[in-house]
Amino acid sequence: MAYFDAASATPLHPVARQALLASLDDGWADPARLHREGRKARMLLDASREAAAEAVGCRADEVVFTSSGTRAVHSGVAGALAGRRRVGRHLIVSSVEHSCVLHSAEVFEAEGGDVTRVSVSRAGAVDPAGYAAALRADTALACLQSANHEVGTVQPVAEVAEVCRAAGVPLLVDAAQSLGWGPVEGDWSLLAASAHKWGGPSGVGLLVVRKGVRFAAQGPVDERESGRAPGFENLPAIVAAVASLRAVRAEAAQEAVRLRELTARIRARVPELVPDVEVVGDAERRLPGIVTFSCLYVDGEALLHELDRAGFSVSSGSSCTSSTLTPSHVLKAMGVLSEGNVRVSLPPGTAEADVERFLQVLPETVAGVREKLGAPAPAPATAVRAEELVVDSLGKRCPIPVIELAKVFGDVPVGGTVRVLSDDEAARLDIPAWCEMRGQEYVGEEPAEKGTAYLVRKVG
Amino acid sequence: MAYFDAASATPLHPVARQALLASLDDGWADPARLHREGRKARMLLDASREAAAEAVGCRADEVVFTSSGTRAVHSGVAGALAGRRRVGRHLIVSSVEHSCVLHSAEVFEAEGGDVTRVSVSRAGAVDPAGYAAALRADTALACLQSANHEVGTVQPVAEVAEVCRAAGVPLLVDAAQSLGWGPVEGDWSLLAASAHKWGGPSGVGLLVVRKGVRFAAQGPVDERESGRAPGFENLPAIVAAVASLRAVRAEAAQEAVRLRELTARIRARVPELVPDVEVVGDAERRLPGIVTFSCLYVDGEALLHELDRAGFSVSSGSSCTSSTLTPSHVLKAMGVLSEGNVRVSLPPGTAEADVERFLQVLPETVAGVREKLGAPAPAPATAVRAEELVVDSLGKRCPIPVIELAKVFGDVPVGGTVRVLSDDEAARLDIPAWCEMRGQEYVGEEPAEKGTAYLVRKVG
Repeated sequence: MAYFDAASATPLHPVARQALLASLDDGWADPARLHREGRKARMLLDASREAAAEAVGCRADEVVFTSSGTRAVHSGVAGALAGRRRVGRHLIVSSVEHSCVLHSAEVFEAEGGDVTRVSVSRAGAVDPAGYAAALRADTALACLQSANHEVGTVQPVAEVAEVCRAAGVPLLVDAAQSLGWGPVEGDWSLLAASAHKWGGPSGVGLLVVRKGVRFAAQGPVDERESGRAPGFENLPAIVAAVASLRAVRAEAAQEAVRLRELTARIRARVPELVPDVEVVGDAERRLPGIVTFSCLYVDGEALLHELDRAGFSVSSGSSCTSSTLTPSHVLKAMGVLSEGNVRVSLPPGTAEADVERFLQVLPETVAGVREKLGAPAPAPATAVRAEELVVDSLGKRCPIPVIELAKVFGDVPVGGTVRVLSDDEAARLDIPAWCEMRGQEYVGEEPAEKGTAYLVRKVG
Repeated sequence: MAYFDAASATPLHPVARQALLASLDDGWADPARLHREGRKARMLLDASREAAAEAVGCRADEVVFTSSGTRAVHSGVAGALAGRRRVGRHLIVSSVEHSCVLHSAEVFEAEGGDVTRVSVSRAGAVDPAGYAAALRADTALACLQSANHEVGTVQPVAEVAEVCRAAGVPLLVDAAQSLGWGPVEGDWSLLAASAHKWGGPSGVGLLVVRKGVRFAAQGPVDERESGRAPGFENLPAIVAAVASLRAVRAEAAQEAVRLRELTARIRARVPELVPDVEVVGDAERRLPGIVTFSCLYVDGEALLHELDRAGFSVSSGSSCTSSTLTPSHVLKAMGVLSEGNVRVSLPPGTAEADVERFLQVLPETVAGVREKLGAPAPAPATAVRAEELVVDSLGKRCPIPVIELAKVFGDVPVGGTVRVLSDDEAARLDIPAWCEMRGQEYVGEEPAEKGTAYLVRKVG
């Protein structure tokens, strides 16, 4: 059994477990009370805040404990936007933020706010110039993740913070994926993070609001957490979360080197071992433990199940693995293949042998899924040749449209086109991505009688 | 050491601790994931939801786990109000709700909503007729606690639910103080509760929304918890919370009888043992474990500290124990004395010997605080007699104004008046309450050059 989904959640760090047990005895009371149980709880809360501040690199009174990373982002975005309402109603986010940032942006839009989504490179990184271009006189807030949760690409936070600072606009950094590895560099204004990403328990998020940042907490509030996170503090979990952060930080430098070597190995060997694979995300500026690739002609959910049976827990951004049947917005924004997508995110301590075994198992697993789906074999096909071939994939879902395209493509002469009819949302992303991988020309899409027609021209 | 502040928070129940430890191993992963760790977490979450529903007396798909009881109330009120926006913008609450309900009402008012606050009897109970009178054609929601958190008075929830049901208005019940003792009776529509009140860990609240209740979750949401509570589920804590609820319920009937006898003993004996005490809250319709009383001429914070030194952890609704320097809104709404206020809330398992020791210690503790403050002794004073005596308590805080009133009162002839000048908010509540306790006439208040003048006439 190997758990390779650390970017979703990690098991509780042993140090966090110890801290949790100890503070269940000493930290269950209300820290707002004057009696000795309350004072003990208050001392634990204060000490946790000091330690969290040290790990983040900020003042203790800038740290607010929230009930999750998602809640930290929601509260942080809403509070910062409201605090600068008089400046304007414009928000900047990158197009590859975590959904909790994008959901906050959508609520802001529904309330009449204006949102600019900064695009990313094919590697998933924003360009500071993209933020510079998006900044306006009425920009209230900009948001940028420290590193991407699906492909591991590290963002140029310090540069973007500089650009924002020059314009007098606060930058909120979603540091959920990176805070366990080290503090976020640069002159950011707000920061959000989530404890269960660094071996802490669930139920704890961090919101940091730098002194001097205008902030107006939204919704009903109470006196707890400087009026920025209502409700009884989740104290034993807070203590455990901070203990874990300190523990993983102590091991971070060494473990980063080790995991980076393991993910580099996956990045290099998967394309050698498995045909028709695209490794996505930046090869250099990336988190140590995340590597993501997409396999042509593969159903993401089937691949996940087969890997699970083989003892590997991974996640996927393919449309067939989401309840909404749309592919990951991150892969979409990067313009890379989404079908057969696999995210491997190694927790600290991952054994090299597990990674080797994964590399051993993967080729046959992918081949098995492809075979079941009737994916095209490398052998040339012989069939009717035509100037324009029509592939009717209506009613069929990812990865079938691409598989059917590939099946007939051998029969198309150079210069000929294939018209793929599909009503699956993933095809919009995956057909152009297939063209890029195959060096074929993606002509474009047009509405069809039913669904959409995607035109591909054979160039060689 | 005796912890008598169970209404704030209770220590973790041993069963909850066991459940928490077990689910830290099995329930840390993301229940939304397809891999085996995710499926294990999903099974624990589903089983917890079933068990919570059984304890509440509702369907599993009506239960939402939130990050605190406060958050359950905030989300429940906001969602129910938004769901019935087309009906109207009127909200009914009782004047003795928990501050999280009142804060929700204040936000609603700030957004243009209209709020009616239903008054309570001197015992702290609402009258269903009060709700009936408050209901309007544009009423979107009514809220009522199942029992009061400061004085323990049980509210007529079933009757109020009936009144609301007849008008087609949903009733939200804040069951934070009572859910550990049993399900909430009556035909309510929404329910909120908090795990750390029943021996569960902090970080878990319950929001129940009955099928058929119009509900529109507010703020950014995600796919978790039916779109009603965003953010990663606090799973091990949820499992522990539900395990604890089942455990305390199994002991509830027996423990309720035992605690009720102990609090009845405090209710009866405190006024015998300590002069000038008012026991507040309903003597019959009350929670088993809560008893509250106020002591004339006593500084609540000083009394808390002295009781803490004597080994008793209690809380207080006196103004001097709150950071806002205003007395508890509950005591204010009841019109009872707020100075020297003590809430004793016994956790399940409280030893009879601890209660006896409390009754032994209390008289000398109160006497000691009174002596330090120079409270009046029963002996008659000899001083200047006048038709109207003026007591200047400007700049002095609770309980000094009442102490100074009492000190001079012996010198006032029957029919004479005392004019107390005070700028302390608690005086507005405590001077009339003192008059009621003493059988003297409270004439009223009027603005003075500085602060307010409170007029008291001696009738005997």
